[in-house]
Amino acid sequence: MIKRPTDIYHSRLRSIRRSIRRKAVDGFLVTDINNVRYLTGFSGSSGFLFITGKENIFVTDFRYKEQSEREVDGWEILIEMGNRIKIIRDLTKKNNIKKLGFEYSVSYDFFRTISGKGMNLKALTGLIEKLREIKDITEINLIKEAVRRAEAAFLEVEPYIRAGIRETAIARRLSERLKKKGCRCIPFDIIVASGPNSAMPHARPTEKKLNKGDLVIVDWGGEADGYYSDMTRTLLMKGSELGKKREIYQTVLDANQRAISCVAQGMQSKKIDDAARNLIRDAGYGEFFGHGTGHGIGLQVHEAPRVSWNKSEPIRDNMVFTIEPGIYIPGLGGVRIEDIVVAGEKKSEVLTSLEKNLAIL
Amino acid sequence: MIKRPTDIYHSRLRSIRRSIRRKAVDGFLVTDINNVRYLTGFSGSSGFLFITGKENIFVTDFRYKEQSEREVDGWEILIEMGNRIKIIRDLTKKNNIKKLGFEYSVSYDFFRTISGKGMNLKALTGLIEKLREIKDITEINLIKEAVRRAEAAFLEVEPYIRAGIRETAIARRLSERLKKKGCRCIPFDIIVASGPNSAMPHARPTEKKLNKGDLVIVDWGGEADGYYSDMTRTLLMKGSELGKKREIYQTVLDANQRAISCVAQGMQSKKIDDAARNLIRDAGYGEFFGHGTGHGIGLQVHEAPRVSWNKSEPIRDNMVFTIEPGIYIPGLGGVRIEDIVVAGEKKSEVLTSLEKNLAIL
Repeated sequence: MIKRPTDIYHSRLRSIRRSIRRKAVDGFLVTDINNVRYLTGFSGSSGFLFITGKENIFVTDFRYKEQSEREVDGWEILIEMGNRIKIIRDLTKKNNIKKLGFEYSVSYDFFRTISGKGMNLKALTGLIEKLREIKDITEINLIKEAVRRAEAAFLEVEPYIRAGIRETAIARRLSERLKKKGCRCIPFDIIVASGPNSAMPHARPTEKKLNKGDLVIVDWGGEADGYYSDMTRTLLMKGSELGKKREIYQTVLDANQRAISCVAQGMQSKKIDDAARNLIRDAGYGEFFGHGTGHGIGLQVHEAPRVSWNKSEPIRDNMVFTIEPGIYIPGLGGVRIEDIVVAGEKKSEVLTSLEKNLAIL
Repeated sequence: MIKRPTDIYHSRLRSIRRSIRRKAVDGFLVTDINNVRYLTGFSGSSGFLFITGKENIFVTDFRYKEQSEREVDGWEILIEMGNRIKIIRDLTKKNNIKKLGFEYSVSYDFFRTISGKGMNLKALTGLIEKLREIKDITEINLIKEAVRRAEAAFLEVEPYIRAGIRETAIARRLSERLKKKGCRCIPFDIIVASGPNSAMPHARPTEKKLNKGDLVIVDWGGEADGYYSDMTRTLLMKGSELGKKREIYQTVLDANQRAISCVAQGMQSKKIDDAARNLIRDAGYGEFFGHGTGHGIGLQVHEAPRVSWNKSEPIRDNMVFTIEPGIYIPGLGGVRIEDIVVAGEKKSEVLTSLEKNLAIL
């Protein structure tokens, strides 16, 4: 287990305090559980934060009393007994909060409930998500560890991938290996999609057996102390008439590599998507690549920044995100190759290291 | 695989159409993915519904094109390319919607974005969640199958539970067995908490080895075609001075059984909670039972109804929920016994069948 110094949480809290002053609120309610973890280290599934200029209070329910005492240092801990709204009201009154910031991710229902209590509210849109985009060295190391576990698990499963094996059996074995490598959870349902199934970008493993000539997409991730990895490799089963499949594989690989070569501080995220998308379009497969090129990863499998055609932001140093172009042809099958990169000042570091030249099994 | 007739989806849609007429809206935007699945059978993770008096439209993104064509019958399928808001706007205009209902579970951010487009909006609070509370026979059979898989997996793991085994090893083995029994996913992180760890109601498995005299809480669930089960058993490891632990076990078991005996149509849910809570309080352990007595289960592990002290609603025929009182004593350990019941007209049917008399291993 990699230990994180408590200093990190203090520095994150200071940064939030600066932001809330800038946003002209005198209190901030943090309800997104990933943001709660980011600021406190709490790894449970229920809790929220109430931050003022002077106070920082962690509220959870009875189930997490012991766990929060173990994990959350430097925060006043309050235990709620099903009276969340009353606690927020009392804290607002007690701390003389005139305007309370809240996270845009709260449900409309929650927003309406706290609005009704005569509170002066202000949505602080993506404040902590923006901080989380830029990873510190400890976070990058945890993502590296999550990649290492994912790759080690895959290498142990790869010898079992052959014609006649069911998609579900491969997924199950991979999931077992991930746990054995130390992952406390599997970050998302593993995709093993072969033959026609591989034409669905988000297929789930079925009882289908791998056949000769199948393209096989495997999309999986690891975990290390709350941080995730996410990667995809595509294999090809021996068979006849593999020419078309080799061609789309090579096109996706070229798109993957061209996009990676564009990653650097200052680059617009849309330009990275363009690099992959234009290459695929020019090869004649534009209509078969319908998803974005990549997404940030960290405490969530999908987080900011997005690398897509419909949104753009400048890439900054130490952003960590995936690059995962794909081509999916109904009936024939699909190819996706997904890596994780850390943006640097001049170029990127690729964290994933598994072979990308086409493996024909 | 248990097959569900498409008729069910049609009848659910008819029921929603009646509701939206009653609520005086002429369109309804369904965004909660579990509600989308409930109404269409779509098992992917991204999609929403636009329902009017005449039209019913399913919108998803490129990744789910093939899957939605396979799974969603009787709905017009639209594929969005990152232009969700525009599609909602266009559908509203095209269908001449004067007032659009939306789900209270949308994020504040989404609410604000669609509000800004000059739309007349109305939150329809818990409309589909209320329908989902009452299970039909197909749903009950799927939950039964999810229970069967969970219990069969546990019975294969139980022989390995002994002093010297790590909590994580038990959880891993149970997770493997659940997959082998046919569960496509593990509904929540399995809890295996021993000795002092068992005093945390939501502990996660650690590297701790089971010791003599430990109470061991195992809380796990199965899955069948999207429906979940959730159950807990507590074991006791041989050792000295087990008296206190036996006593709290018996108290929790009495509370579990008393609460179950109260379950019937017409009973207020709070009364069921009272039955368990008062028994535990009268035995002198009131302060050590801080969570609710139970929760509905179905397409989500936690859904309506809640069985708790701070909310009440009348129990209706074919509601399915857990009964899970517990006592957690810091330092000593904890006990929780969780079953799943289906409320009937006169009494309840208990779906879980694993032994509840204290097993001393």
